[in-house]
Formats: sequence, structure tokens, C-alpha cells
Amino acid sequence: MSDAADIGLLNLRWAQTLVDALAAAGLRDVVLSPGSRSSPLALAFLRQPAIRCQVILDERSAAFCALGMAKATRQPAALLCTSGSAPTNWFPALIEADLGAVPLLLLSADRPPELLGWGANQTIDQQRLFGNHVRAFSAPPLPASAFSTAYLQRLAARAIADSRWPLPGPVHLNLAFREPLLPAGDLLATHAVAACPAAISVAAPLLLPEPQAIADTLAEISARPGLIVCGGADYPPGFADAVSALAAQLDCPIFAEALSNLRFGAHDRSRLCVRYEGFLRPASSLAAARPAWLLRFGAFPLTRRLQDWLRAAAPAVQVVITADSRWPDPQHAASRLIQADPAQTCRALLAGGGKPAPADWRASFAQAEGAAEAVASAAFEVCAHAAETSKIFEGTLIPALLESLPAGHRVFCGNSLAIRDLDAFSGSGDKPLRFFANRGASGIDGNLSTALGIASDGPCVALVGDLTAQHDLGALAATGGRDMVVVVLNNGGGGIFDYLPVAALPEFERAWLTPQSIDLVAAAQSFGVVGERVRSLVEFRVSVERALRRGGATLIEVPIDRQASVARRREFWQRGAAAPV
Amino acid sequence: MSDAADIGLLNLRWAQTLVDALAAAGLRDVVLSPGSRSSPLALAFLRQPAIRCQVILDERSAAFCALGMAKATRQPAALLCTSGSAPTNWFPALIEADLGAVPLLLLSADRPPELLGWGANQTIDQQRLFGNHVRAFSAPPLPASAFSTAYLQRLAARAIADSRWPLPGPVHLNLAFREPLLPAGDLLATHAVAACPAAISVAAPLLLPEPQAIADTLAEISARPGLIVCGGADYPPGFADAVSALAAQLDCPIFAEALSNLRFGAHDRSRLCVRYEGFLRPASSLAAARPAWLLRFGAFPLTRRLQDWLRAAAPAVQVVITADSRWPDPQHAASRLIQADPAQTCRALLAGGGKPAPADWRASFAQAEGAAEAVASAAFEVCAHAAETSKIFEGTLIPALLESLPAGHRVFCGNSLAIRDLDAFSGSGDKPLRFFANRGASGIDGNLSTALGIASDGPCVALVGDLTAQHDLGALAATGGRDMVVVVLNNGGGGIFDYLPVAALPEFERAWLTPQSIDLVAAAQSFGVVGERVRSLVEFRVSVERALRRGGATLIEVPIDRQASVARRREFWQRGAAAPV
Repeated sequence: MSDAADIGLLNLRWAQTLVDALAAAGLRDVVLSPGSRSSPLALAFLRQPAIRCQVILDERSAAFCALGMAKATRQPAALLCTSGSAPTNWFPALIEADLGAVPLLLLSADRPPELLGWGANQTIDQQRLFGNHVRAFSAPPLPASAFSTAYLQRLAARAIADSRWPLPGPVHLNLAFREPLLPAGDLLATHAVAACPAAISVAAPLLLPEPQAIADTLAEISARPGLIVCGGADYPPGFADAVSALAAQLDCPIFAEALSNLRFGAHDRSRLCVRYEGFLRPASSLAAARPAWLLRFGAFPLTRRLQDWLRAAAPAVQVVITADSRWPDPQHAASRLIQADPAQTCRALLAGGGKPAPADWRASFAQAEGAAEAVASAAFEVCAHAAETSKIFEGTLIPALLESLPAGHRVFCGNSLAIRDLDAFSGSGDKPLRFFANRGASGIDGNLSTALGIASDGPCVALVGDLTAQHDLGALAATGGRDMVVVVLNNGGGGIFDYLPVAALPEFERAWLTPQSIDLVAAAQSFGVVGERVRSLVEFRVSVERALRRGGATLIEVPIDRQASVARRREFWQRGAAAPV
Repeated sequence: MSDAADIGLLNLRWAQTLVDALAAAGLRDVVLSPGSRSSPLALAFLRQPAIRCQVILDERSAAFCALGMAKATRQPAALLCTSGSAPTNWFPALIEADLGAVPLLLLSADRPPELLGWGANQTIDQQRLFGNHVRAFSAPPLPASAFSTAYLQRLAARAIADSRWPLPGPVHLNLAFREPLLPAGDLLATHAVAACPAAISVAAPLLLPEPQAIADTLAEISARPGLIVCGGADYPPGFADAVSALAAQLDCPIFAEALSNLRFGAHDRSRLCVRYEGFLRPASSLAAARPAWLLRFGAFPLTRRLQDWLRAAAPAVQVVITADSRWPDPQHAASRLIQADPAQTCRALLAGGGKPAPADWRASFAQAEGAAEAVASAAFEVCAHAAETSKIFEGTLIPALLESLPAGHRVFCGNSLAIRDLDAFSGSGDKPLRFFANRGASGIDGNLSTALGIASDGPCVALVGDLTAQHDLGALAATGGRDMVVVVLNNGGGGIFDYLPVAALPEFERAWLTPQSIDLVAAAQSFGVVGERVRSLVEFRVSVERALRRGGATLIEVPIDRQASVARRREFWQRGAAAPV
């Protein structure tokens, strides 16, 4: 048995070896939540100059923040917390990381095995705490005098690698320490470490499509009317150009969701459709259009309207392309699954020299898109300068918000109604913007903390509903110096339920709508965040532009009159669908 | 609530839809164990002409048989059993499939959810019964009148696809049925189905190595002394030629284990070393040779001697190539992990144009290999015609066995001492032979049943120890018409322990060696299997050749004198190591 002084020193050296190896494997961000048992690792992180440390009290918020950082940087972010119930607060965020395929490294400190089940304080069974929801779990042995540096280095490299491939997601390391946790004496100057070279390099493969599947697909789609549907995804570099070139060769439209990140940027957007929420309505001739084929990339479509239209198109050849082993096909309508890199698959199809669809096919979509665009522009012009509160309508507020943002800005969109409104009303443009949302499990939890994580990588605007804002209000305690503007669409509760059958129930307001009485502006101010409430689109634009100029964190509350919004939407869609096609 | 007649018909239609879709997805083999709850699926399988059904009473044996079939055909094989403890008998085989990366489809029948926990007969909680040890688990809803054919078809295709990629292994579907299990009335002629086209095609990606990793590797290995180590694996087509060409370009030896399947066949074997068990012994000059680099393919090496030699080489650049996300590196010595197809990686390295190692490097290995080969040949010649029992020694019996087999024959090798002896003594040759073993979890359980599964694909010889044979003797009850020769090396218990420190303990014989008193020949005969006992190498060769000519199942017991075998080995290795290099 080592004596106490040895154990503390061993703990720190062990922790520093692991953290150093994580840095060598490319880890650049960790979010720490304070605690005692995690002290050796916390100190090791704080003294590793290659890793940026952020400290967030609430582990749930910390986990969503790390999620946002990993989304923004496209690199794994780590979490560290103490033993007991602390890591269980990570669960909602790691579920999102699991389903959203976001690399996350969970480091839970633990007590030694001899304390588990014997009434020791803050001691729970942390073995495989998150079950199948993590890509890998490991519980290395306690630090001991003869610990293997080679093992710890590869454990670190492997945890990072497992969080990336074959399916990005969370990896959990449970790390037990005996007391004393740290060596006694002055730790002020000692034990700082520099980044060291990696003990092992790991190279994941390029995923090329199987050639026969490409040939078979081309035989099914060439010279026939079809379309490409791009759902939300973090597509690989070059995808926008590759899919545009493929659409040009096949002369087909691309239905691009906001979260596909194809709507904004300098690439060829000439075949994009972003107004299908309008032109697929029953009154439109395209509602009855039936493609012979569909190529689907990314997540299954977001909106009920597009889903229903795809369902009606189900006899069509439906080719789903995905780089991992998940099947985004809840309608069970795919006729071919190509497991490969999406950009490489576009290039392989392009090289196959498919023939264009009949000429009138894409023209009908282009015409409908143009007509819907005209309706949206007209609505925007009418509202842009109106001062009355009742005129604030998501269909004009969202384009106004996007217009005000500088090129390259990040937009995090909350779930429920906000993301559907973004998809319906964002429009598209040359200015690059990068959109994010938590669409893995589509929860309204942790949305502000996720935006906070994204803002760690550069200025971010978050667009969320009032319930979403309230659910994660604690995130505003941790904004630090980040440039983040939170736009809260306050429609007095769960506005999305207005569009569902439950709206007719007598219990509707109490248990679905759940209007809250919180003053969001005052709440923001209580956290030291600038809070403003606007009453018109003009005020909104002024407020956003001021917030962007000022920097730091601002919450802008936008009161939405629910009844008026419902009515405005109906009118908007009727005009769009009735537009000549 | 449907009435009873409807439920039975629904069960059968539902089962036929699923089984038909499994056939369409490429399933060709199922092993059924009899039971009641599984009746709809059993009947559906028996009436699907595209799927071969075998019936094995013992679910454990059935599962190892399916494992062997999947190994031999390189395609998923399915299992079906009833509810209760029945599927738990699959556990040892599916652990082997998990670690051995063998595609297996587990179909457990179940009782409906309302019976679980209410004292119903043969009802256990089968949800996620095998935890993390399966690639995927699914429990579709009970057959109901509005069941979705499209869903069942894709569920079937997905189960097959999940068993193949990204990491081959077991997939578990738990399938509940309500009573009555089958429709009443005459089922003799009705409900037979033909194979239908697949509702969905699935194409897994080609895994190409990341180009930078190839360039970095070449910079590390070009013009420097190194070697290629090929452990056990089911390598992709073309690997033998690709790795031979790479070795030729780099002018380096290839250490090829028996289970690499590189030792026998028409490819270029000029740089192979298969006698390293001899020439890496301390007396040999090569024991102290230190490569500058190692390229490792397949499983981590089998024998302690090669493992130790690799450990001593640990400062070397060690590049591990693996097509999946597992890390075969228990020494934590790899400096680079390339996750990609092994054949494609060889080709990419070859295209990079690496320079050969210094000329004397490979020459020293070639000389040692030649000398060890000469010792083995001399030993073989001495023994081949000797008649005394004491002269039966694994080092000559194994080459004699392999010599007697026709080209293309399958050899299953049991674990423990047999596989190590195969690796040490197989030699190599132009005649193609295909070797198998259960090296995922390396158990002595289920070995004969696995060989039985391999024999379903074509004639197979199994080489196993006496404890291994006894552990799975029940497999002999299910040999059916298969051509299988089981060679049992009977050294009176756990002979491998003779080589370990426990051999000196007073408790050794009782708890490690565990000599058995079973008469294996009589046991075989009790199952209707021909049983013979041989007393010399000459008798052994005659017995094997007769068994191969006769066809069907034969068990040949070869008594081994443990003490004599230990002494013969020592002598053999001393002469090999002392050979001039």
C-alpha cells in the first residue's frame, strides 16, 4: 500500500499523462464543472496550455455547451465532473450527441471500487452509466505506482478516435481516484506540462460508394424526373459544390432544408428550392407532382408537409445516402441505401454521366419557387416598416434577422416552432451563414447552452421560443465574454400546439400551451445579460444591430400575438399557393 | 381484439413476410431449434425455398454451428429458437461472433408483453438479452392486422446489413407472438412462398486508407529494415497478392500465422516466414534482431514467443491496419492506426513506391526460415514411417494431416494447445487449404459444432484436444450427412497447462489437467459416428485417408503421451534454434 503522499502525487501524474495525451490526440476544449473527486483531472486540464478550459456550474448546461462547441469546431469536446449524481446531469446532452452524431468525451471522476455499495458519500454505480447511448465506455484501473504511460496515451487516443468513427458520438471514461486526491504542499509552479507529440496517430478511412450501387442508381435515375432532398447534416467539405454539380447534370431541383446549410453561400444555388413549404400546399399544382426518383441526403425531412409529399411519392425509387450505419427512413420507403461519404457519392454519380430529366420537370419547380419567393418578398416589404406590434410575424422577422447578420455568422435555432419557421421563412442568399440546431432528439432542453458552446467558436445568434428559453435560462449565467444574441419568440407558451388537434381540448391551455409568467428581460438582466423587449419589426432590427455592434450577450424578447400569427400564416400560405405556377 | 383464427393467420403471414424479406436480403442459412412459440417463424423458414434449414436440438450447439456456417460462407447465418432459457444458450457462440466479427442473426421467439412478470410459463425478460454484445437489437410490435410490409422488409434488410457493417457481428431480433400461434386447419399446401425481389438494396462503402497516413507510413518504413506480421483474419479477396507484392517491394519478410490463411495457396510465398516459433528462440541470432518498423494486419499474434519478440521490438514504428474500429494492440505499442481495408492499404502503400530494406535484412530471415524448415523436414522423415505409439508427436502429425488433405479442404483448429501446435508445425505449401478457429474469445466450448457449421459448406477436418472434444461432444449428434473428420489429440487433459507454472502445484492434476475417463471412440459410435483410435503416425494417415474416402463423419482419437510430447518439443526446438543461420 502506497502512503498518502505517494497517492496524491500519483493521481496528479496519472491525470496529467491522460490529459497530455488527449491534447496530443487533438482535444482542444473541455468544460469543467467544479467538484472534489475530479480535482486531479481538473488541475491537469487547467495546466495543459493546448486545451481551453471553461467552467460551468450546472453539469447539464456544461454538457450542452460542450455539445455546441463540438458542433461548431467539428472536433470532440470534453466534459469533466465529480462523482455521484453529477454525471447524470449530462444525460440529455449526450442523448443529443448520440442521435445527432456529435463527438463528445465524458470524463466522470469516481470513487474507488471498495467504496461502492458501502454507504460512502456521493458514491453511485457509474459503470456503463449511459448504457448503449455511448459509443464506448472504459474504466481504467486506479492510478498505481506502476501505471503504464503507453496504455494511458492510447486510451486517450482511442477515446478521441471512438468519438469520431465509424459513428461520431459520446464516449465515456469513468476515472476513479483514491484519497488524498492531490499531493500536499505547494502546487503553484510544479507539474505544468507542455503539449507532447502523440504516441499514436489514428487515420479513419475514406468511405467510397460501392461502384455497383452507383451504376444501379444511375440506371434508375438517368433521364427521368426526380429530385434531390438535402436534410439537416454536417456535410463534408465540398458537398455543396458536388451536389449542385450533380443537380446540374441531372437538371433536377434540390429541396434544401435550412439545416442542410446549402441555402446560404457562394456555391451554385440555381437549382435550390427553399419555398416548398408554400408551393407543396394542396392548392398548388406541384402538390400532385410525382417524381420517378428521389436522392436523399442527411436527416429525414423536418416538416410535416414535405414528409407527406414524400409519402405520396413513395412508389418512386428512393435512394438514401448516409456515411454511417443509421437508416434515416421512418417511412420505410427507401429502395436503396448507399453507405458512403455524401460528397464522394455525388462525385461518383456525376462521373457516371447521368442524363438530364425532361426539360419541363425542373422548370415547373423553378417557377413555383420563384412565385413563392415573390410572395415572401412582397410580405416582407409590407411589414418591414410597419410599427404596430401586431405586425410582428415570424415570416418576416426571420428574413429580417438573417439580413442583419454579417457574413459567416452562426445561427442556432431552437426546436419546436422556431426551427419549422426557420425552414419555411429563411429564404436563401449569397452571404454565407452557418445554421445549427439540436435535431438529434429535438428537445427544447439545453438549447441556450448549446448556442453558448457555438458562441465559444465565434459570434452566434440563437432563435428560440419562450418555453425553450425558460427551460435553459441558467445558461445565461455562463455567457462569459461570448458574443451571443438570444432572440426569444414569446408567443405565450407552446405555440406549436396551436397547429395540432389538442388545441381544441378544454385542458389545452393548462397542460399543452403552459403559458409562463416569467419576465425574460428581467431574468436576463439578473444574470448580467442585456435584456430588451421590442414591439415592432423596426424596433427588432434596431435592437439586433445594436446588440451585434455592442458584442457580449443580449436577450431580445419579441412578443408574438399567437392568434394574429396563426392568421398571418394562413394568409401567407394561401397567397403563396395561389401564385401562378 | 382479433378473434383466434385471425391471430394464427396473422402470425404466419407476418412471419412469412419477414422470412421472405430475409431471403431477399441474401440470407441462405438458418439453424432452427425446436419449440412452440417459434412455430410461425419455423414454418415460414421451412417453406422458403431460398433458405436452407438445419435443425439442431441444443441451442448452444445450433449457435456454434451457425457461427461456423457464417465463417465458411462469409455470409450471415440465422438462428431461431423458442422463448425462455432457450436463447440464453446462444450466449457463448454470440460472444465468439461478437469478438470474432462473424455476422449472425439471432431470432428469438417471445411471449407477448402482457405475460412478462405474471408467472406465465417459459417467459423471461428477453429485451436486450445480450446487452452490448450484439451490434443491434430490435423488438418489433406484435403481428397486428395492419402490419406494415414495408417496415418488415426493411427491418429484415437492416438486420442483415447491421450484421455486416461497420463491424460484422451478431444482431438480435426478439419476436413476440400471441396464441394461437398458427392458423387452424390444413397447412399442408397453403402459404408456401417463393423468393421475392428485395424491397431495398444496401451497399456498404469501400474503406480506402487516408492518403496522408499512407504517405507518413512510407516515410517511416521506406529503405529501412522491417517486417509485416499477418495475424488471423478473414482477409478480403486479393489480400494475399497485395501483401506479397508489398513485401517484394520493401524486400521484407512476412510473418504469417496459420490463421492468416497466407501459408497455403498459389500466391507468391517467397517472403513468408512460418517457422518463427523455432528461429525466434533465445539460441537463435534472430531473437535479438530489431526491426525499425512493423506493419501489422489481422489479430494480435497468437503465440507467446512472437508476442514477446514484438514486445522487445516495441521502440519500432508499429503500424496497425484494421478495417474496423477495434484496436488489436494489447501491448499498447502501436504508433499508427490505419482504419481501412487491408488489401486497399497494401495497394496504396505499393503505389507509394517505398524502397527496399538493406539487402542483408531479409536474407537473415530467409536463411533462418530455411534452416528451421530443414529441421522440420528431417523430423518428419524420421517419424513418418515409425510404428510405435510413443512416436506420435504433434510436430509430425500436423504436417501429415495437412499433406493428406485434398486441395481446397477446410481445417478447423481447436483452441488451447491445438491452435498453437498448428501455428508452430503447419509449414506451408502451394496447395490451397482454408483454416478456421474460434479466436474471438478463444474458448474450448462449441468447437465441434463450429466445425459442423463449416462442414455444411464443404468437407472439413477438425483438429482438437480431448477436453475440447468432450466439452462439445453433443455436436456429434447433429453431423447429418456432413463430411467431417474430427481428429482428437488425446493427451489426457489440459496439456497446455504443462507449459505453465501451475504444472508444479500439488493440485495441478485435479483442477488444471482434469484428465477425463470418457471413451471418445465409443461416444462417437453411440452417436452413429465412425470412431477409430490410432497408435502410430502410419495408422493415423491410413485412418484419415480412409475417412476422407468414405465421407460422412469420423472421429479419430490420437493418444498422445504428454511427457514424451513435451520432451520431443524441447528437442525439436533445440535443433531448430541451433541450426546455422
